[in-house]
Formats: sequence, structure tokens, C-alpha cells
Amino acid sequence: MITLPYLLQHENICRLEGKHLLIGDRRAFPFEKRFEVCSSVDQVAESLRAMVTQGGGPLEVALQTMVWVTRLMQSGELRGGFATLADAAKQLMAARPTNTTMQRALQSLLAAVKDSASDLEALDHAVQTQVDLMLEGYDRLYHQMGRMGSTLLKQDSVVLTTCFAEHTFLLSLAYAKESGKHVRVLANETRPYLQGSRLTAPSLKEMGIEVQVITDGMGASFLHAGKVDMYMTAVDLLCMDGTVVNKVGTLSNAIAARYYNVPYYAFSISPDPTKQGGADVTMEMRSPSEVTRCMGSPTTLDSIGALYPAFDIIPSELVTALVTPKGILEPEHVKRNFP
Amino acid sequence: MITLPYLLQHENICRLEGKHLLIGDRRAFPFEKRFEVCSSVDQVAESLRAMVTQGGGPLEVALQTMVWVTRLMQSGELRGGFATLADAAKQLMAARPTNTTMQRALQSLLAAVKDSASDLEALDHAVQTQVDLMLEGYDRLYHQMGRMGSTLLKQDSVVLTTCFAEHTFLLSLAYAKESGKHVRVLANETRPYLQGSRLTAPSLKEMGIEVQVITDGMGASFLHAGKVDMYMTAVDLLCMDGTVVNKVGTLSNAIAARYYNVPYYAFSISPDPTKQGGADVTMEMRSPSEVTRCMGSPTTLDSIGALYPAFDIIPSELVTALVTPKGILEPEHVKRNFP
Repeated sequence: MITLPYLLQHENICRLEGKHLLIGDRRAFPFEKRFEVCSSVDQVAESLRAMVTQGGGPLEVALQTMVWVTRLMQSGELRGGFATLADAAKQLMAARPTNTTMQRALQSLLAAVKDSASDLEALDHAVQTQVDLMLEGYDRLYHQMGRMGSTLLKQDSVVLTTCFAEHTFLLSLAYAKESGKHVRVLANETRPYLQGSRLTAPSLKEMGIEVQVITDGMGASFLHAGKVDMYMTAVDLLCMDGTVVNKVGTLSNAIAARYYNVPYYAFSISPDPTKQGGADVTMEMRSPSEVTRCMGSPTTLDSIGALYPAFDIIPSELVTALVTPKGILEPEHVKRNFP
Repeated sequence: MITLPYLLQHENICRLEGKHLLIGDRRAFPFEKRFEVCSSVDQVAESLRAMVTQGGGPLEVALQTMVWVTRLMQSGELRGGFATLADAAKQLMAARPTNTTMQRALQSLLAAVKDSASDLEALDHAVQTQVDLMLEGYDRLYHQMGRMGSTLLKQDSVVLTTCFAEHTFLLSLAYAKESGKHVRVLANETRPYLQGSRLTAPSLKEMGIEVQVITDGMGASFLHAGKVDMYMTAVDLLCMDGTVVNKVGTLSNAIAARYYNVPYYAFSISPDPTKQGGADVTMEMRSPSEVTRCMGSPTTLDSIGALYPAFDIIPSELVTALVTPKGILEPEHVKRNFP
């Protein structure tokens, strides 16, 4: 029996409690298990911008926000009507522009419930049913992809990873472990937010998988020493031509992996059909002050500038294969498999 | 007139004051300009291990320690004799094993003063004279290499750098600026010690050179975007076959620079004739706890392990050219120029 670590259990990502929406605060983890308590959609959008949750987190937050908004409409706390729901969705979509999974899920949800929009009770029921279906669907995909990913791992494989690759990556390791394979992970700390140190490493530890943290510049060093068997990451956005968009720092390791002939596998539930390639990607530039601080402390003088592109665009030629619900695909086969 | 920034002025790297040797504490910079006050050679060695100073710092500390030890012998505080001096040198050499510049300088100093060893006054005079000569020699080389390095820079060049590349790199930028060229530097923060954020960026700012800090995973991102004209670093150890050993994180950028056809220039005063190639390098593995802390704060749970190889070994094929006192050399020409 595979158990997801604390961070990936639905109720710890996001849940409704009374009149509030609670978001598991990944900024405080693992030092504290606290929740950001939201009383308005504004506050939810601001929490996403402020990275209270990230990666796959915003997807679940957005879906639960739709459930929450319909409830608040039913109890009269929000003006009833489809427009209220659509406005809330729009606000969330704008919060993090690069990863479009949440945007696409919201669009699909709105399309599915639109016909029930005339009656608040019917809308509430439709939204709840649809969100449950979608979340169950994701869970099924996660496990399916985890089982697929586990076939890439061998006894004693050493896997380099960046950021927090969440369900599909962690489940790949879990299924490999379940089938008796010992694997070890080298986790980039992933500055500036340290998702590698704070989210990935403690989650792997919780799952009983060996992990060591390294700084973001060290991946090539271990590749050079012949100590890495594969590089694996999540995908924040997959383009139709196989271009991968993921946390800044991913490109650097993908290039080094190629230089040392080590495969790079990336996990994606689906490509974004509106993004043909890297040129279509909306790049999120975040505040320089996040680069010049670490764990709340300044790392340099206030007068020093910095730059913070949140994601890397990784050319498909650097990607060995994509683990998707349609199988483990070479990047050039994405388009044909997701028509 | 070129003025070196605070951190590179001799008296701020290391100086003798009364019976003490003072080492500029680069761990506290730029937040504080403090000195580590040493009362024994043990303490000096421990300071080097603890990274009070680093890069080219240990070289000056070691030479001043030799002056200090001879003075303490003369005043009777240390047992007089060449053995005391040689023992002190040995202790310092062992403190940081990878960068051998300090080791080679100490060996050459000991060889030069050995004939004066019978008389404490003569020894003191010989050591002081020799150290002054060596430091003046380095200063001359630094400026000579800085002038050479400046020829690689063009109007509006953007230079990516890692760690704190000290005199030769900073002087290259200063000479470029003096000749009217505007240049801009992207400085890797260089975890775990953040030399990029704390030493390089404030020193460049002090010199009036535009600089922005990026995290260690971002170099490839800016190379991909076509926003980097060259990569430049110091060299902690140059092997005879042109293999460069430098701060961990350098290899990753050198590979990415090659992938995007951007030149990588490294500054070295001289190769180590005892190191033919990467296989001869003694790699310093530092404490994992340095990786799992930042600016004094833990970045993950205490139970999480980490790895910290202090340096990267960069194959010569990734090095476009070496800026040396013998000219700007292709790596395969190092041996012939430093026979």
C-alpha cells in the first residue's frame, strides 16, 4: 500500500473549513505545519502569488475555490450566478501565469457546469461532482504515471531532481521501493524557495527513500563523477513540440545530463494544446528581493539588484522522454499522442 | 587610477597587529567588517578551515603567518629555528587541500629563506624581504592579467561569474571600465557560502560596475535567453593539461556556456606542476551541515543528509582560454608555457 507523504494528502494541500478555505503553507514546511486561512477569493489569489503553495498545489486550491464559491453563493454570502464563479476563476488563473494546468482545469470545469448555471443548487451540485471527478481522475493518473515511472528505476539507481516534483515523481520512487528496488535521490535545494531542501527531502524521508540535499550548482559535479543514473523532474508546462517548462535550475541540469549522456525524464499529465513551443510561454518574472534573501535573512546589501525568472524553458532535444498518461513518450511524439 | 575594493586591499585580507595576526572575516562581509584575531598558528589554520577567508585569501594569510612566526621567534614567544617555521607552513598547507597556490608559495618561501635559518635576525629579515617581494610580484601579475582580461570585454558585454574571482577578474572589469567600456556582471550567489552575493556583488558595486545576483541554477537560463556574452571565473587549481579546478557550480555553467557557444575564460597565475590532470586533484569534501544551513538558519530538518564537494573539476575541453601571466592561452598550451 502506497501512502502519499503529508504534503501531498488532499486535506493538507487545501481544504474547506466552515466559511474558510485553508491552504497548506509550503513556505513554513517542514519547520511548521500551518495553514493560510482565506476568507475571500482575493486572498486565495494573493496566496498563490505569494507561493503559499506551488507546483501542483494551485490546481487543487483552484478547484476547491470553485466548490467554496458556489457554497458561499448558496448561503448568500456571494452574489449568486455563473459570473461570480467565472470571475473567481479568472482571478486565480492570473495569479501564476506560466504553469497553465490550473487554468486549463478551471476552463474545463466552467465548461462542464455552465448548463447548470440557472439554478444555484444545481450549480453547487454540478461543481462539487465535477471537482470530485477531476480530483479522482488526477489521483488515478498520478498512480498510473508513478507505476510507469518506476519502470525507469533500477536497483540502486541514483536520481537527481530539482524542486518538488510531487505526486508522479514521488509515486515512481514509492512503486520502485514497493517492488524491492533501493533508490537514492540527490535533491537540488532549489533556491530561492528551497523546495528541494524543504519539501522534496523531508517528503522522501517520510516515505523511507534515501535522499541527500545538494546545492543547485552541484548537479554537474555528481554527473561528472559518474554518480547520477538519471535526472527526473516534474513539468510545469509541456508544449506540443515537447519543450518542457519547469522551475529555474532545471535547464542547467538537463544540459549537464546530456553532456554526460545521462537520461532526463520529465513527468507531465498533459501538454497545453495552446502552446506549440517555447515562444508561446508566458514567463513569470518574480521579485528580485526573493533572490537576495534566504529563510528570511538578507544574503547581500539592500542596494544590490537581482533577477528572478521563475522557470526554465528546456528545448525538447534535451529531454530523453516524457512520462505521461499516454505512456513514456519521446518529446517529438507528444503532439501525435495528445491531438 | 584603479583602486581595489575593500575586500582585496592587503590590510583587509590579513595584517599583523601587535602580537596578533588579523584575518578579514569574509563570512561576515558585507554586513560587518570584522577581523578574526589569531594568537596561534593553530588558530590561523582553523580559521582557514572555517572559511574566515577563502579563494586567494589563504595565500596572503599564509605569507603573513610566516612573517609573524619569525617575529614571535625573535621575541622568544616561539621556539627559534627553521623547524618552527616549516611546521607552521605544514599546518597551514593542510588546512585547505585543493587549492595548492598557498602550498606552492609557502614551499618556495621556505626554499628561499632556508640559507638564513641559522640566525634568527637574518631569518626574520629574509622572510620579510621574501614575502614583500612575493606580494609585490602577485600585485604586478594581478594588474598585468587584469589588463589582459579587459581585452576580452567589449562595450556592453554581459559576464556570468561564479564565486568571488578576486583580483584578476575584478581588475579586468576595472581596466575595461577605465577604457570606457560599460560591462555588466551576472553573479551566481554561490551557495552555500554565498560568495557571489556577499563578496562579488558588493565589491563590484563598490567599483562602480553594474551587477545583478542570480541563484546558482539560473546561469543556463540567461545563456538560453542569449543574455550572456562570456563566462569568467578564477581558478583554484590549474592542472598542466588545462583542467580547471574551481568552486563547485563552475562546471555546470561551463557546460551550459559550451552548449550555447559562449566562451569560458578562467584566470590563473600559474598551473601546479605536480598536477597533470583531474585525477591528481585532492578533492576537499566539506561538512554537509554547510549545505543544510543558509545565513545561519537551517534550510531543512536536522535529520536530512547532504553532500558538499567544495570544488568542480572542469575538463579542459570546456575552457575556451586561460588568462595567465604568459598570455591568454588555450588550455592545451598551458604545459608548453609553464615548463
